[in-house]
Amino acid sequence: MRIIRKPADLRRRVHQAKRRGKSIGFVPTMGALHAGHLSLIRHARRDTGLVVVSLFVNPIQFNNRADLRSYPHTLARDARLAFQAGADLLFVPSAREIYPSDFQTFIEVTRLSRRWEGKLRPGHFRGVTTVVAKLFNLVQPDVAYFGQKDAQQARIVRQMIQDLSFDIRLEVLPTVREPDGLAMSSRNRRLPSEARRGAPVLFQSLQEGKRLIEWGLRRETAILRRMRQVIRQVPGVRIEYIAVVDPESLEPLRIVKGRALLLLAVRMGKTRLMDCCEVR
Amino acid sequence: MRIIRKPADLRRRVHQAKRRGKSIGFVPTMGALHAGHLSLIRHARRDTGLVVVSLFVNPIQFNNRADLRSYPHTLARDARLAFQAGADLLFVPSAREIYPSDFQTFIEVTRLSRRWEGKLRPGHFRGVTTVVAKLFNLVQPDVAYFGQKDAQQARIVRQMIQDLSFDIRLEVLPTVREPDGLAMSSRNRRLPSEARRGAPVLFQSLQEGKRLIEWGLRRETAILRRMRQVIRQVPGVRIEYIAVVDPESLEPLRIVKGRALLLLAVRMGKTRLMDCCEVR
Repeated sequence: MRIIRKPADLRRRVHQAKRRGKSIGFVPTMGALHAGHLSLIRHARRDTGLVVVSLFVNPIQFNNRADLRSYPHTLARDARLAFQAGADLLFVPSAREIYPSDFQTFIEVTRLSRRWEGKLRPGHFRGVTTVVAKLFNLVQPDVAYFGQKDAQQARIVRQMIQDLSFDIRLEVLPTVREPDGLAMSSRNRRLPSEARRGAPVLFQSLQEGKRLIEWGLRRETAILRRMRQVIRQVPGVRIEYIAVVDPESLEPLRIVKGRALLLLAVRMGKTRLMDCCEVR
Repeated sequence: MRIIRKPADLRRRVHQAKRRGKSIGFVPTMGALHAGHLSLIRHARRDTGLVVVSLFVNPIQFNNRADLRSYPHTLARDARLAFQAGADLLFVPSAREIYPSDFQTFIEVTRLSRRWEGKLRPGHFRGVTTVVAKLFNLVQPDVAYFGQKDAQQARIVRQMIQDLSFDIRLEVLPTVREPDGLAMSSRNRRLPSEARRGAPVLFQSLQEGKRLIEWGLRRETAILRRMRQVIRQVPGVRIEYIAVVDPESLEPLRIVKGRALLLLAVRMGKTRLMDCCEVR
């Protein structure tokens, strides 16, 4: 149970653990931990010998400075929660340490980054894959844990692991939700109370889409029409995208045949919310 | 002494060696081995416990299809030379294995790739860093060996290792030359005999530049003027670039103060030749 700030220190401890035959589990986070993160940490605790949690608010994945500035910083609370959930090491590097002034190396997963979040937040996924690869090299995990909630991110990280032959198993774990269905997110705490009351409509819309597909509806347009109707029950929700996509390519499915992924991003006031749901 | 084609097979052998406490030395090549490569392999043999040599003509670093098609393939000879020099494993993957059809992840070192080779061969360094990172992840070496001759490449790989925190020591070893000074290169064998006789003029030009700087000449323009004069003694040599640069930033030095790197690329008929020289 230790907070580590220096990459060299992290490396020494990871090497030590590996020499003792321990496997390494890794949960990368930007802090502001919630039940979704804790579920990842608990899985890592169960599966691996040394559980490393990183806490780094990655500046290069924010395309919006205001969003970066307002991102919550709650280290003392995060450390307590992470250790309670089973973390061995909390890696909290400085931005200077991760991005020295001459930093200039970037990783891009091209096709999968084009649509959805990638389109609305130019450079976002380049920032994600770059920092995740760097953290992979620092932590050298056997297993890395990501949440299904950021479905496009998880898919992109999987592609990067495969394309660059990282010797890492990726575990993507189910979205953890509030009792009313709202997906856990660090951004939820920014919702004014009225918006918070309306926010479960995202989950309801996804559930409706899933039900329709399971009942045999196949046409994208019909599925999305009904999903939009559900969202419109709550005033003040602006849809940024809503889509039925192939879970591998993330390209829109005109007709659902096998598996499908429902993706959804909205704005409620100044807060962006995303959610998704897989249908088999 | 074994030729390996499958990444999984390579991984198994590397893991085995690591468990036995052996350090891993890695020499990435595109085959057509010459004395420069063999010097890298011998150094790896001396310093590390398992010497892995890769032989992969990386399609994505060729911006010119004719150059890719005409690149020499001499596996039997390469294998014999590599093993004689001390290689334990020769990793010879197929292009399909390295780049499956859905491959889409690329690494770019931005600022250092802009000039010189990067400018003349768009996408070249992106191809180099992408395949080198992938090979690093497959081989997981403790030490990687590169030749100083491709000075910009070596500098870019060093930047990538640092920026992405690869846990790898980079050894950049001196250029090996023919008795007349011509730097060893797989492309030398394509030189018609007259061009081959004139080719040492590159080395002579670099030596002249070095001498001038050591004698106290500081102004870039004066140094380059004299270096160009040396090259012009041989007809039919077209200079692509000739530069006095900072060895860290690779940016041109108007006035030489501390260390400097002399870079040179020419065309002789259809063959491109590069050479360089560091001055302290």
